Amino acid sequence: MDRVMRAVVLDGKVKFSRTHPAPKLDSAQGGECLVRVLAAGICATDLELIKGYLGFRGIIGHEFVGRVEQAADPRLVGARVVCEINCVCGKCDMCQSGLRNHCRNRTVIGISGRDGAFADLVAVPQRNCHRLPDSIGDEEAVLIEPLAAALQVIKQVPIDPRMKVTVLGDGRLGLLVAQVLQSAGCKPRLVGKHAAKLAFADKRSIRTVLADELAPDSSDDLVVECTGRPGGLEAAMHLVRPRGIIVLKSTHEGAAPLNLAPLVINEVQLIGSRCGPFPDAIDLLARREVDVAGLISRRFKLDKALDALEAAGKPDNLKVLLTM
Amino acid sequence: MDRVMRAVVLDGKVKFSRTHPAPKLDSAQGGECLVRVLAAGICATDLELIKGYLGFRGIIGHEFVGRVEQAADPRLVGARVVCEINCVCGKCDMCQSGLRNHCRNRTVIGISGRDGAFADLVAVPQRNCHRLPDSIGDEEAVLIEPLAAALQVIKQVPIDPRMKVTVLGDGRLGLLVAQVLQSAGCKPRLVGKHAAKLAFADKRSIRTVLADELAPDSSDDLVVECTGRPGGLEAAMHLVRPRGIIVLKSTHEGAAPLNLAPLVINEVQLIGSRCGPFPDAIDLLARREVDVAGLISRRFKLDKALDALEAAGKPDNLKVLLTM
Repeated sequence: MDRVMRAVVLDGKVKFSRTHPAPKLDSAQGGECLVRVLAAGICATDLELIKGYLGFRGIIGHEFVGRVEQAADPRLVGARVVCEINCVCGKCDMCQSGLRNHCRNRTVIGISGRDGAFADLVAVPQRNCHRLPDSIGDEEAVLIEPLAAALQVIKQVPIDPRMKVTVLGDGRLGLLVAQVLQSAGCKPRLVGKHAAKLAFADKRSIRTVLADELAPDSSDDLVVECTGRPGGLEAAMHLVRPRGIIVLKSTHEGAAPLNLAPLVINEVQLIGSRCGPFPDAIDLLARREVDVAGLISRRFKLDKALDALEAAGKPDNLKVLLTM
Repeated sequence: MDRVMRAVVLDGKVKFSRTHPAPKLDSAQGGECLVRVLAAGICATDLELIKGYLGFRGIIGHEFVGRVEQAADPRLVGARVVCEINCVCGKCDMCQSGLRNHCRNRTVIGISGRDGAFADLVAVPQRNCHRLPDSIGDEEAVLIEPLAAALQVIKQVPIDPRMKVTVLGDGRLGLLVAQVLQSAGCKPRLVGKHAAKLAFADKRSIRTVLADELAPDSSDDLVVECTGRPGGLEAAMHLVRPRGIIVLKSTHEGAAPLNLAPLVINEVQLIGSRCGPFPDAIDLLARREVDVAGLISRRFKLDKALDALEAAGKPDNLKVLLTM
């Protein structure tokens, strides 16, 4: 008889099931392994998926830590791991040119074409797994995926300590990006709307500004847009200097009216930025250069996942965790 | 008594005047000179200004050739010149860091804060003037400003001959950009909606595709967006490969609904591009590496400027010239 498990399933609307079929390792896909989820984090993308973004159907969840329960590679069994979310073919032009995260045939854990981790078990490619050092706890480990995404900013834009840098958005990602930029040697300022969230950055000696008190003067060398809102880019265009750089991290469902004339006139460079390097994120966390545990504002049992999703959408929450 | 002259004046709506006050050299602005216009070209930006773009009031026109009639520097008097359109302070942070075209205090001839060249006379800073070699005729010279703008693309993006490059838009700028890319050693394809305009590129051995027959496959290394329409960027996002580059040349009045999620997901780089290097444009034209004369589709006397502006807005026209 097939095993069943608990899972948060999106099928037009989101629901919690106790009897979802557990994943089985397909012998035709020999590179997969089965991971028992220890904890998972709710990301803004999960909330967007629920609103209809990308039209995803299946188990959501892509930030997680787990223990490998079954794998073709016996050395992997029992390992505590985090997993890269892009599952790639290794054969297409993108994979062959070193851009595996942009694989033409990829599935993405809990986002596109593949079940995710708000469940007891998740099947992932073995090569997507990164073993964790003991010094990184389970809860912290959940933040490795978004920390890697934050690190992607400094992979795409070389940081000079003299750069004038603004991070727009005091949500989970903005607070990670600001810390990563600080670790890279510059002194970013963080702009947000929530005093309580900005206080987290204040404690880390990151300069903060309330959005309402911001005087845009087109002088930033770099603006990282992490608001998660369609209006964020327009705000960034008012902050960045001519020939400056805007890194765009937000994705969302729906189109906003936008006139990019200022970007043309000021010859601004706009760089889309998505997933980042897991090994760098694990290193940064192991060296204690960033605080991710402080970003966890609430914890829910998987059984209460729907409550957790609702809480994660509230502006006063930072990272909401699901535990088993 | 003050001199009067003919001029095309924008003041909410556009009108032709025979009695507009002629510009006078202000002794307080010792660096200016007076240029008698020989010929001028109508640019898409002029048509956008008339629609309300940037809220400009004054004499329009910024692509022109003329002869210096009066100047503090006696060597300049009598010279046949083209003029850079950005009039800069030389003192602000942008000027001091070598980004004079982005001067914080700039005026722009016929576009912002300063009268333009659809007139008998125009006052411009002496240092904005570039002498023309005899080998370049007056009509060709009018195209130097847009040719410089086209050249800016290859100043911003290093061109490799193996790059897969698409130019979107078969208007004046698109046809110049395609030629400039060809001169830089790559083999661009030009996508447009007008068979007659694409035929111009065909003659120059540039591969052309009708927009309706285009099959977007996210494989271009570089897409240069010259459509002048809000929808152009979305088309470009379907053509460019992950981690590819889109250069955005179009500016227009009004905002279009736009969801930049594909740009984030594919980590595309979007670069705004405006004015370019006049000396390079003069060189390229003198070496006959591009055909600009073939882009001139109609000529009108300045007295018929309003007819000329109407003609320039018709899709079957390429460059419309005003002569004196």
